[in-house]
Amino acid sequence: MKIRYLYFILKNTQIPVIYLHMTELSQSAKYPENAMEKIISLCKRKGFVYQGSEIYGGLAGTWDYGPLGVALKQNIQNLWWKKFVLDREDMYGVDAAILMNQEVWKASGHVGGFSDPLVEDLKTKKRYRADHLLEEVGVDPRGMNISEMDALIKEKGIKSPEGNALGDVRQFNMMFKTHVGATQDEASISYLRPETAQGIFVNFKNVVDSFHPKLPFGIAQIGKAFRNEIAPRDFIFRVRELEQMEIEYFIRPEQWEEIFESLYKEQLDFLYEIGLSKDKLHKIVVPEADRAHYSKHSVDTEFDFPFGQKELLGLAYRTDFDLKAHQTASGTDISYFDEAEIDPEKKRLIPHCIEPTFGVGRLFLAVLSNAYTEDNLGGEPRAYLKLSPKVAPVLVAVSPLLKNKPQLVEKAREIYTTLRKVFPGRVLFDDNGNIGKRYRRQDEIGTPFCVVVDFDTVEATDEKKDTVTIRFRDTGEQERIAIPDLVSKIQSNL
Amino acid sequence: MKIRYLYFILKNTQIPVIYLHMTELSQSAKYPENAMEKIISLCKRKGFVYQGSEIYGGLAGTWDYGPLGVALKQNIQNLWWKKFVLDREDMYGVDAAILMNQEVWKASGHVGGFSDPLVEDLKTKKRYRADHLLEEVGVDPRGMNISEMDALIKEKGIKSPEGNALGDVRQFNMMFKTHVGATQDEASISYLRPETAQGIFVNFKNVVDSFHPKLPFGIAQIGKAFRNEIAPRDFIFRVRELEQMEIEYFIRPEQWEEIFESLYKEQLDFLYEIGLSKDKLHKIVVPEADRAHYSKHSVDTEFDFPFGQKELLGLAYRTDFDLKAHQTASGTDISYFDEAEIDPEKKRLIPHCIEPTFGVGRLFLAVLSNAYTEDNLGGEPRAYLKLSPKVAPVLVAVSPLLKNKPQLVEKAREIYTTLRKVFPGRVLFDDNGNIGKRYRRQDEIGTPFCVVVDFDTVEATDEKKDTVTIRFRDTGEQERIAIPDLVSKIQSNL
Repeated sequence: MKIRYLYFILKNTQIPVIYLHMTELSQSAKYPENAMEKIISLCKRKGFVYQGSEIYGGLAGTWDYGPLGVALKQNIQNLWWKKFVLDREDMYGVDAAILMNQEVWKASGHVGGFSDPLVEDLKTKKRYRADHLLEEVGVDPRGMNISEMDALIKEKGIKSPEGNALGDVRQFNMMFKTHVGATQDEASISYLRPETAQGIFVNFKNVVDSFHPKLPFGIAQIGKAFRNEIAPRDFIFRVRELEQMEIEYFIRPEQWEEIFESLYKEQLDFLYEIGLSKDKLHKIVVPEADRAHYSKHSVDTEFDFPFGQKELLGLAYRTDFDLKAHQTASGTDISYFDEAEIDPEKKRLIPHCIEPTFGVGRLFLAVLSNAYTEDNLGGEPRAYLKLSPKVAPVLVAVSPLLKNKPQLVEKAREIYTTLRKVFPGRVLFDDNGNIGKRYRRQDEIGTPFCVVVDFDTVEATDEKKDTVTIRFRDTGEQERIAIPDLVSKIQSNL
Repeated sequence: MKIRYLYFILKNTQIPVIYLHMTELSQSAKYPENAMEKIISLCKRKGFVYQGSEIYGGLAGTWDYGPLGVALKQNIQNLWWKKFVLDREDMYGVDAAILMNQEVWKASGHVGGFSDPLVEDLKTKKRYRADHLLEEVGVDPRGMNISEMDALIKEKGIKSPEGNALGDVRQFNMMFKTHVGATQDEASISYLRPETAQGIFVNFKNVVDSFHPKLPFGIAQIGKAFRNEIAPRDFIFRVRELEQMEIEYFIRPEQWEEIFESLYKEQLDFLYEIGLSKDKLHKIVVPEADRAHYSKHSVDTEFDFPFGQKELLGLAYRTDFDLKAHQTASGTDISYFDEAEIDPEKKRLIPHCIEPTFGVGRLFLAVLSNAYTEDNLGGEPRAYLKLSPKVAPVLVAVSPLLKNKPQLVEKAREIYTTLRKVFPGRVLFDDNGNIGKRYRRQDEIGTPFCVVVDFDTVEATDEKKDTVTIRFRDTGEQERIAIPDLVSKIQSNL
């Protein structure tokens, strides 16, 4: 067993959490050798994820989603939005601007506290995370403040990775700063939002005024957030431009335990729905000593990524901290009038809030990692994506057995056209190379079903007429099926 | 007739276009009095659009979409993505990062040229658009450079709107600047992308390498872009944070005229599909003198907004300008190998490109403006949104005639639950107030259909049993319909 540290960014503070890491052996046993390198390579080759600004040498911590990546990402987002917003009566969607009045980030605590402890190599001027440097020499930086870290680095004579002397430890704010308007002064400062949550809190009163929702109710948002990470790493796991799917669920304080449990269950249900394996998911109750001062309870869900067990999503009981902070800072009364409350003392309240947070990129990477499989099929080694049909970018590929036989091509195009109407954007026509190569190509991008039109389909005089072969990705097994039954066969797997 | 100027931002240059504005009379005749004020008020009251950071006094040029706004926006975006990406075989979707390597914007010309001419009030230090100030004294600033504008402002002794002396005219770059990484120097500069297009161009080679598409083909993207407008105005029309739906369609140069025409037709088809009226749309062929130097042809579509005829979307033949610029600047060979070409000289080429651009916010505002209607219904004045059922946030509202009759409520809930499964997120249960008020409330947010369960539905012993009233928004007419026919009745209107 090895001891490792993980840093959770719980809103405006960083909380080091120590936990016992699973053994290297059991970790790696869940993945084929060099799985991460293979997944990154597959992502680029097949058009899932490209390096941002790649032809210019990239921009660290930014990634571009290619055609298959956009499709997979949309499938994940649409399932999320349907489950948490469209299928519920208690949820309201918003889409707030990324640029917000700087006062928002003062009130939320981000201007003061959303920062990393950095230390500068005095020769190269490169900066490093002080806590990371301490960890590397076996020191647990948990709970240390800036001056304690500074003292320890000096005491131990820690050098930079290049072997040079280091300066003092300083706080470095992780928000990207810009200026809005024609002048560049204090008043025109704005930040790229480091989280979507505040866009929800500042619209709490607007949503209440427009819709008069009854407690408990939630406000949900999908959108980008930006964090100036000093050391972006692990592919799309720790990035500078991220996408969040976030809910602030507003409650009466006495309801919190029950609702927390039910939201936790729904988070897990969603992870299962997009195909993640139970045995790779871990519940981490954040210990009291490590929680932010306003958080009464916090449960993270970690996932066994190929590079280790890391935070996948979070659930935090944030009390009335944010709404109160915005009420005080803005001077706007954002209290809620609770018609259902009998006690006149309690009719006006600032609701408490539970926050389920999902990172789209991390879910995307978890889904891909979980799906990446190597096996032997028909005596040949194979690498494929065992994606759930619910999220696979291509659901079904349609092929003529031979591309130079017009009657096969015509029939295949006909089936392709029919299926496209039922599954828009998720049907591919593929007549490139021989049929074995096509199967392997579809396996590689995780297409669950391949349909092949052969001579029996068009020429048979017996019951094989108007039937096709449907081939299943995971087993490689094939089945003969009547063309009119194709749609229901595929739908039964969704 | 009044002469007006409109400024088109065609990528990295600004092209003033003079055109004859329609008379104020015919313009206003298309809208009820004070239509814009009423639409803005409706948007806030009903939860379509709120001012960004509103409780903090806002942040000029930013707006937040509320629950109904998100629904309407998603409907517009989903129809667009389906028409231009999912339903086509020649289109590839990408989702590139907002933060890009600064070299991208040097190559595209934005660092050098994406700017406004500004002049400063020497007393208040406020800055103004020099071209706007010239327009206001009847001067046509079309084609003037900075020093010509400067000379003219001095010659005419133009003062600031506050009556103070003005400084020199200077170029002001409209890109938001920030720094990525731990240091703040020249090397760490990055910009918030001012257009989504460049995220497509820099991924051209990636998409070609992953998918080997045949010419012509397109790459499409929906995403945010940012422009530091000095004078954001007209609600969500001219904003600092915008959302674009953009396609770069790559072609052989000899194909351009034919493809340009067909893309123009598809742009119009889309506008009709989301419900815009033909008589409010205008085709503007941008004259040669006003086009950017690399643009061979450009057609804008303008729409009669309540505040005037303004640019809604653009279509530009951009030749091989961008791909060539990126090939040169990045030193990466991004030429395309055309297998279908017989002439060996032409097999390697930089494809040309036609760009259809849609602004989501402008489409949103056009749809709302177009739908805003005042009439008389049943002798009472009414204001409602005549939204196409394809984009209306709520498609159908289901009500019990009386909310205190359990058998009516139960039946209404049953129908509501059934319809929700067919139209996720687009069905509302409404039992608030009397039935007349519910109809007006649904009219106001553009709900095309209201379904009401009454005593006949549950108690009738004749053919009225299991029938409901369906009420149509535009006419206020009602029809008796069997419950099992509801879905097909609604679907036939989609």
